[in-house]
Amino acid sequence: MEKITIVGAGLAGSLLSVYLAKKGYEVEIYERRPDMRKTGVSGGKSINLALSTRGIHALKEVGLYEEIKKIAIPMYGRMVHSINGNTQLHPYGKDETEYINSVSRAELNKKLMDLAEDFPGVRFHFDMRCLGMDPGRNEIFFHDETSRANIAVKSNVTIATDGATSPIRMEMLKSPRFDFSQEYENYGYKELNIPPFPDGTFKMESNALHIWPRGSFMLIALPNMDGSFTCTLFIAYDRNLGGDSSFEHLINEKRVIGFFQKHFRDAYELMPTLIEDFFENPTGSLITVKCFPWSIDGKLAMLGDSCHAIVPFFGQGMNAAFEDCTYMNECIDSYRGDWNRIFLEYQQMRKVNTDAIADLAQENFIEMRDLVSDPKFLLKKKIEGELYKMFPDVFIPKYTMVTFLRIPYSVALSRGKAQESILSEISSGITGINSVDWGKAKLLVKTRLSRLDL
Amino acid sequence: MEKITIVGAGLAGSLLSVYLAKKGYEVEIYERRPDMRKTGVSGGKSINLALSTRGIHALKEVGLYEEIKKIAIPMYGRMVHSINGNTQLHPYGKDETEYINSVSRAELNKKLMDLAEDFPGVRFHFDMRCLGMDPGRNEIFFHDETSRANIAVKSNVTIATDGATSPIRMEMLKSPRFDFSQEYENYGYKELNIPPFPDGTFKMESNALHIWPRGSFMLIALPNMDGSFTCTLFIAYDRNLGGDSSFEHLINEKRVIGFFQKHFRDAYELMPTLIEDFFENPTGSLITVKCFPWSIDGKLAMLGDSCHAIVPFFGQGMNAAFEDCTYMNECIDSYRGDWNRIFLEYQQMRKVNTDAIADLAQENFIEMRDLVSDPKFLLKKKIEGELYKMFPDVFIPKYTMVTFLRIPYSVALSRGKAQESILSEISSGITGINSVDWGKAKLLVKTRLSRLDL
Repeated sequence: MEKITIVGAGLAGSLLSVYLAKKGYEVEIYERRPDMRKTGVSGGKSINLALSTRGIHALKEVGLYEEIKKIAIPMYGRMVHSINGNTQLHPYGKDETEYINSVSRAELNKKLMDLAEDFPGVRFHFDMRCLGMDPGRNEIFFHDETSRANIAVKSNVTIATDGATSPIRMEMLKSPRFDFSQEYENYGYKELNIPPFPDGTFKMESNALHIWPRGSFMLIALPNMDGSFTCTLFIAYDRNLGGDSSFEHLINEKRVIGFFQKHFRDAYELMPTLIEDFFENPTGSLITVKCFPWSIDGKLAMLGDSCHAIVPFFGQGMNAAFEDCTYMNECIDSYRGDWNRIFLEYQQMRKVNTDAIADLAQENFIEMRDLVSDPKFLLKKKIEGELYKMFPDVFIPKYTMVTFLRIPYSVALSRGKAQESILSEISSGITGINSVDWGKAKLLVKTRLSRLDL
Repeated sequence: MEKITIVGAGLAGSLLSVYLAKKGYEVEIYERRPDMRKTGVSGGKSINLALSTRGIHALKEVGLYEEIKKIAIPMYGRMVHSINGNTQLHPYGKDETEYINSVSRAELNKKLMDLAEDFPGVRFHFDMRCLGMDPGRNEIFFHDETSRANIAVKSNVTIATDGATSPIRMEMLKSPRFDFSQEYENYGYKELNIPPFPDGTFKMESNALHIWPRGSFMLIALPNMDGSFTCTLFIAYDRNLGGDSSFEHLINEKRVIGFFQKHFRDAYELMPTLIEDFFENPTGSLITVKCFPWSIDGKLAMLGDSCHAIVPFFGQGMNAAFEDCTYMNECIDSYRGDWNRIFLEYQQMRKVNTDAIADLAQENFIEMRDLVSDPKFLLKKKIEGELYKMFPDVFIPKYTMVTFLRIPYSVALSRGKAQESILSEISSGITGINSVDWGKAKLLVKTRLSRLDL
């Protein structure tokens, strides 16, 4: 059977290897890092992630979901923490059947690797740093960190899942007519910890994603299986933009404590290691990567962050990468063996949608950090909920389309815009749900939105 | 005196070396290619260029303009060739004092090198391919194509003028928070030749830029000192987009001849080497590069195409690079010796303006290939000319602002938009200049545009 080379054994690469192995392909996966199952090194990216419908669908397709479910914590809504410590739950879905899942990136990755290795055709090669490629000669080059030798791997079909800083994409940059952009946010992030009570129980509601929206910045927290929460602070890098709420300003213990006491008092009291965490953990950056084409001549394709890294504010990075696998799988089934056609169709189907989720994710930062505490925004959310009840297959909240359905992201983006303009018109000039002109609302929905085939 | 390293001895690097040498700096220029003054190799880019006010200003600042003027051919307007061979001159400026200049890239480059070498502090190093850099150690790495050795050059202050595919920028890509985009047009170009008559005289009007606008594609021609014209055909790569007028379609002699006979009959008859030119010359691609920051810690800065490559449709690529030199020169004078401040101020002043010329250049492709033969467009041009006469320091045609003035490109872009909306309103619903409501026009100009301090 044909051999496929995968570059990168992160979440996307590991899952993809299972899809391919199930079809009978031999899969060789080359990973830059050591085997995280042995070293415990997890790799410098975010500690936990929100797994939702698109990702779950992919896991179900390859039969891994039941196993992953065991390490997932349902989150039914946003728990919004106001400045005085009051909390309010904003449900994500229409009822308790709609929720997202907090999972540990490292545990998920390890499980995917374990499950992949159950297939005899899958072989992992660790400590192999990708140096580049020569698509003309069907070769991929690696540096073996153990033996310190450079090796050339012959590969007729390669799929690069080597992440946001993809070395394979670096090589693509040199190929003719390759469009590329990378854009950094002016905000960075810092991961912090809220440990469990001594008996291992959670110090806050465990089945929610906690948010402390503060206008131009925010803190969030996701639950972990061990009873702790991983918090992530998103603030501006520069004082210019963020003032005292910036990494440039928060350079000593006193300032950090003052900042947390002022803006996040309830969280601050649950963070005994705040200072160590703040000054020892790296400051993460937020990048959006877009590029095209994603493939060369049926020889190489990119998948996941390597071709469409996005910011984390819609919780869709991993889900979009897993959905790439679903589509790649479909294309392989449709054009079995014709890799040129498989890759062309795959990139054609995915590009417009990953562009859309990139834009949606950037927009959602504003919603999370600012709007969730804005009365106007909350009124619109209420109206949206009512319209969703009235027109369940027409007026579907953007969040629901992205998170709980698998309709294309590009459709979610364009319908989201149309719906937002309807909500703006209806909520304009009124202060409460009781003043809504429902006749007008229904008319707008009927004249501007078509029924979705769900 | 301090030593400055320049990477790339193209137009921008050669001119910059003169600016620096005049201030007394020692300048070491490393160039990938052999010395074009000895080999006659010019380098695979466009053969001639349009030198205009911004570029001329820079040449005058360093005292080189009189020398360059000798190899420049004035072009007073666009000579538009209709499908039946009729021609009409559309002047660029208000009178014969406003013109652009056709210059040979190679001749200009050679002259700039010669003039640079007149300064004892300037040294060129040819056949040195840049491999990368280590800004932390103030080192730039080159491969010496002659000795085949790799060398490390110590350099405290480096300026990269290494062009649209800049190896230095490739290294910048790896640095934190570096925003970057490269975008290719769906159109490529092909250079073709119209030789002179046997007695060396021009076969068409020499003091014009010739255009054959054909809607979705075009041919242009610029005069050369030897009596020939260099023509450039811009057509789509793919049949999908361009139909029969695409590189994908034009793959044999018969099709190319048919295509030229159909669309450019008058030019075709002047092109004895069409087939050789078409199939032997490379197909050029059109790229727009944007990035930021342009500098690292006062150690390295980028200038010209390396940080802002643009498409050629406004004839401003070289002029923008030369204007970079003007601004860099100002910053060096303002903050002499403080390279961190010099580079920060330089990039701050230039970025917004090179972004603007990038957008203006992309827009102008549509104007050149399509609008110049559109009656509505021509009517607007007439109205624009009248308003310019009425309000010479308020309503200045966009082309004039970009080409004949040195007001910032970003101002030209935003005022151009405001003016375009005025022109659209005034020309709406009328077919000729005699129907213009001048009272309304004056009111719009007075209420929407401020006076420019020229």
